[in-house]
This record gives sequence, structure tokens and C-alpha cells, in this order.
Amino acid sequence: MSPRTRSPVSWIAVDWGTSNLRVWVIGHDGAILAQRNSNEGMSRLSSDEYEPALLELISDFLPKDSSTNIPLTIGICGMAGAREGWIDAGYLSTPCPPPRARDAVMVPTDDPRISVKILPGVKQTSPPDVMRGEETQIAGILAAMPAGNGTICLPGTHTKWVKIDDGKIINFQTFMTGEIFSLLSKSSVLRHVVSPSGWDDTAFANAITQSVEHPNMPTAQLFSLRADALLNQRSEDEARAKLSGHLIGVELQATRTLWQGQKVMVCGDKTVAQAYRNALQILGAEVEALDAATLTLAGLKTAFEKQ
Amino acid sequence: MSPRTRSPVSWIAVDWGTSNLRVWVIGHDGAILAQRNSNEGMSRLSSDEYEPALLELISDFLPKDSSTNIPLTIGICGMAGAREGWIDAGYLSTPCPPPRARDAVMVPTDDPRISVKILPGVKQTSPPDVMRGEETQIAGILAAMPAGNGTICLPGTHTKWVKIDDGKIINFQTFMTGEIFSLLSKSSVLRHVVSPSGWDDTAFANAITQSVEHPNMPTAQLFSLRADALLNQRSEDEARAKLSGHLIGVELQATRTLWQGQKVMVCGDKTVAQAYRNALQILGAEVEALDAATLTLAGLKTAFEKQ
Repeated sequence: MSPRTRSPVSWIAVDWGTSNLRVWVIGHDGAILAQRNSNEGMSRLSSDEYEPALLELISDFLPKDSSTNIPLTIGICGMAGAREGWIDAGYLSTPCPPPRARDAVMVPTDDPRISVKILPGVKQTSPPDVMRGEETQIAGILAAMPAGNGTICLPGTHTKWVKIDDGKIINFQTFMTGEIFSLLSKSSVLRHVVSPSGWDDTAFANAITQSVEHPNMPTAQLFSLRADALLNQRSEDEARAKLSGHLIGVELQATRTLWQGQKVMVCGDKTVAQAYRNALQILGAEVEALDAATLTLAGLKTAFEKQ
Repeated sequence: MSPRTRSPVSWIAVDWGTSNLRVWVIGHDGAILAQRNSNEGMSRLSSDEYEPALLELISDFLPKDSSTNIPLTIGICGMAGAREGWIDAGYLSTPCPPPRARDAVMVPTDDPRISVKILPGVKQTSPPDVMRGEETQIAGILAAMPAGNGTICLPGTHTKWVKIDDGKIINFQTFMTGEIFSLLSKSSVLRHVVSPSGWDDTAFANAITQSVEHPNMPTAQLFSLRADALLNQRSEDEARAKLSGHLIGVELQATRTLWQGQKVMVCGDKTVAQAYRNALQILGAEVEALDAATLTLAGLKTAFEKQ
């Protein structure tokens, strides 16, 4: 690229999670010029490894000669801003709108061609809770409905239930359901009876309904999956769907006031989000399915373009 | 030992669990002549390794010359009788008294000096549940109160709650609370905030009370332990006691009809049994503490001596 040619790149948006790094190269008209991923997530990096990992993905979009250029803005959300990440970007406190560029923390870099800013997460004092990355998906939702209110469910390893009102995150609650499902299905005695990836829609639906109607049942139902398989040779797909249904059922019992008779925006495209959408529909809630990656990009744009 | 001398050994009692093997050498007057342990539990052995593992512990109590002797009875309870153990000893079905020698399965051995019998476990058809080993502790309890009735709690990796009446196991329910505590404290995101062995009595008591009063709370409380540590630098001992309290609290909420206003016989001597006893006392139940090893031996004696 000749120094006389204006770079087509306006800035670079980055979603830097626990296990993945995703960058979008954004043009001056807001168009996506390129999108790249790597598995250089926060869990694999020490703080001095972030800048090289980033440059590996974006260096061909940076000017070869740095002397005549304003540094390119790199706007980041996610776990790169955790205490054990690149730099501790802190938290905003609920109730609050999702963080914007003015709330971001500047990260010193060796390379003068980039100006790196990491958005803070959001914390809640009582009961104590934290999010980091999800607040940017919420910003993406609010970008399309600035005075919006309602319930957002963000399924994942740690599923977040978020109450929004008038452009603000009012409160939220995190459930470890996904991590517990993973531990029980892979590392507990249930690993002998639960298939690694199969499913059974009817078994899931029954487990959801039973768990929400009889909140005490699920903890006792877990070992029954093992016993049922020992005594009755049950299908491992059925056991997997039941385990998921019992665990998500407990969560939905605890969040009933957030979804009963209401619309829930379920943000996520993976299998786990599909399970939550099915469960909520079985229980009569209205579900709006939203794409997580699209919302993260929309949220990063809101934070870094509309300053 | 000369063949003319009568052996002082009457029979050998064996508790063969998942991770431990424990033998008691019993004299003709019922006295314990010796007690030995090894870590050759079911999880480490293939079916052809049981006989050598047993002989290693007991061979010096067997006659050198086998030609003139009646084989010595080896009476076994526990996971050695599982499908993946020494031999599948099957199950009795509830309601039933604990299994006796006549219900045991004979195991063919290479060594003619021993006659090995393994007691079956107990199964429940609906809801499906199984026990293997605990039924012998229950036999030990019933030996001291043959027409006894009440609730027995056997804390462990998989805690059993058992209803007994008139010498019979009426029904029972298994909870995976211990295994879930172990997975969450060692392998989940909570490992960063939970101490490996510390404790805080007040935090435990509060968590028990809260969980039993608000059954929906615990699933939401788990991630709060992580957030609370991030935001407020909580003690890891406090977090460990709270995690235990929330999980045991969910179980006690689900078993309320078995302990409220009643006496519960809590069988176990380890830390986990102590936690259950404390929790039940905090909630106003009357607790009788029983020693698991003593009861297992008493149960084996009931099964194999009183035929």
C-alpha cells in the first residue's frame, strides 16, 4: 500500500473470548472488508501474547510505513479485558447502558500503527454477578431498539438472563447450567449412560415440563438416569436429552418471572441456544431468535462508531 | 499351620467398594482376628484380578495344604458384585429385607481353599434406583433394631436416603450431590474461588437455611460465588462452605418429608457425613450418628453368620 493511498480500513472490531478471537475489518462506509478468526482465546494467552496474536490476524491491513499515519483503532470486547486477560478493563455497574468507547481502557502497544481499546464488562453488586462480552451483544440488541425493554437470554457455558429497560441493563443473573451439563455428561458417573451428541426431542420436552412443575425433582432425577440405564437399557440419546432438560428446567423454574407470558430474546446460534428456545416454546413463552455474532459486531459498531 | 490344628478362622468378611478393599478375619467366637485394607477397589480391577487381590490380603490365614480342609467362606458386599466387577451379583427388589447369604452369588475360584459369595445389591423399579454396598450397612442398622422403622441417610459421592419399616428397605433415593460438589469445586470455573479443604461454619449454615427456604436460589447462587470473589475478594473457605451448603440444601429441600420433625440415622464418619449432620441439626431434625465401617461389618455378620 503506497503512503499516498488512503487506507480503505476505518477501524477493526474484535470479539476476544475465552477460546476464540474474531476480528472484523471495517471500511469507511461501515462495510466489512474482511472477517478472520483464530483459536487464540484468553485461556491460551499470557498478557504479552495478545499483541502478537492480534497482529498475526490483521497486519496485512496495517500500513507498512507507520511514520505518516494516524494509528488504526482496534475496538475490543470480551475476556481480553478480564483481570487475567490483556489488561483489566474493569466493569460498569448496573443499572447502566452497555459500555461505549469512552468507557474503554487504552492498552499500550509496541506497534505504533494500532490504538487498542478494550470495553469494560458489567457488574452487579447484589446479588454479585459479572458479564464480559455479553454486554456488547446487548448493545447490539439495543442499537435496533434504543428504548427497548424486556428479557434477553444469552445461552452458553454460563447462561445470562438480562432485564433491559429504556436502553439500560437493569439487572442480570448467571446460571452455570451449561458447564454443569458438560461436567455431568463427560466427567461424572453419567458419562457411562449419556451419548456424546445424540438427542431425543420427546425426552427433552418431558424433562423440561416435569422440572418446571416439580422443582425438587431434578436433583433426584440425575442418578435415576444411571439406574434407569442399568436396569432398563435406556437409549443414551434419551439420557442426554433428559439430562439437558432437567438442568435447563431447573434454570427456567428459577427464572419464571422473566419469561412467563412474555417475549424472550434468545441470543445464540449453537445447539445450546436451540435447546433454550425449544424449552421456552414448550412452556408457552414467545421466543425471538437472535444471532450472536451479528449482535456482537452491531454492539462493537455502536460502541466505537457512534461516539 | 499343622493340618491337625483347627484353624482359628471361622470366615472372612469383605467390603469391596469402588476404591477400597477391606477384609475382617473372623474367629469362631465372632471376634475380629485381623483387619486389613488395600486400595485394590473395583475401579482398578478387571474380573480376573479379584482373586489374586483378595489372596494377597488373606493367604496367611488359609491352610498351606488344601486337601483336608473345607473351603473357608469369604462373604463379600459392595461393587465387586457389579456388572463390571468380579461377577454380577444382581439385585433384590424393593420392598425387601437386606440380602442374606442365601441371596449371594457363588464365585468360581482357582484356589480350592476359599468359597467366595457376593451379596446382591438392591434395586427400585420406579423411580429407577440402585444401591450396592449400602444395603449391608442398612442390614447392620436393622441387626440392632429388627423391627425398626425410620429414615437412614448414607452420605457419600452418591448419597442415599432410605426409608425402612419392619426390617425392610421400603424405598430409597440417590442424590449425586457429592459428585457434583467435587466436579464444581475442582473442575468448574469455581475452582478459582473455592479452597481445596477449608471451611466456614457460619457460611455453611446460612447457605443451608437459604437453600431450603428458597429452593430456586441455589442454581443462581453458584456463579455468584465466582462473581463475589472477583468483586469483593471473598475467602475461599467461605466459598467452599457456601457451595457445599447450597448443594446439600437443594437435596434437603427435596427430601424434606424424610427428615422434618423426625429422627434421621446418618451413617458415615467422613467430612461429608459431618456436613449432613450439621445441616440436619441446623434445620431442627434429630440426628443419630452411626459409624459406616462398624455397620458394614455388622451387616456382613448378619448376612453370613445368621443363616
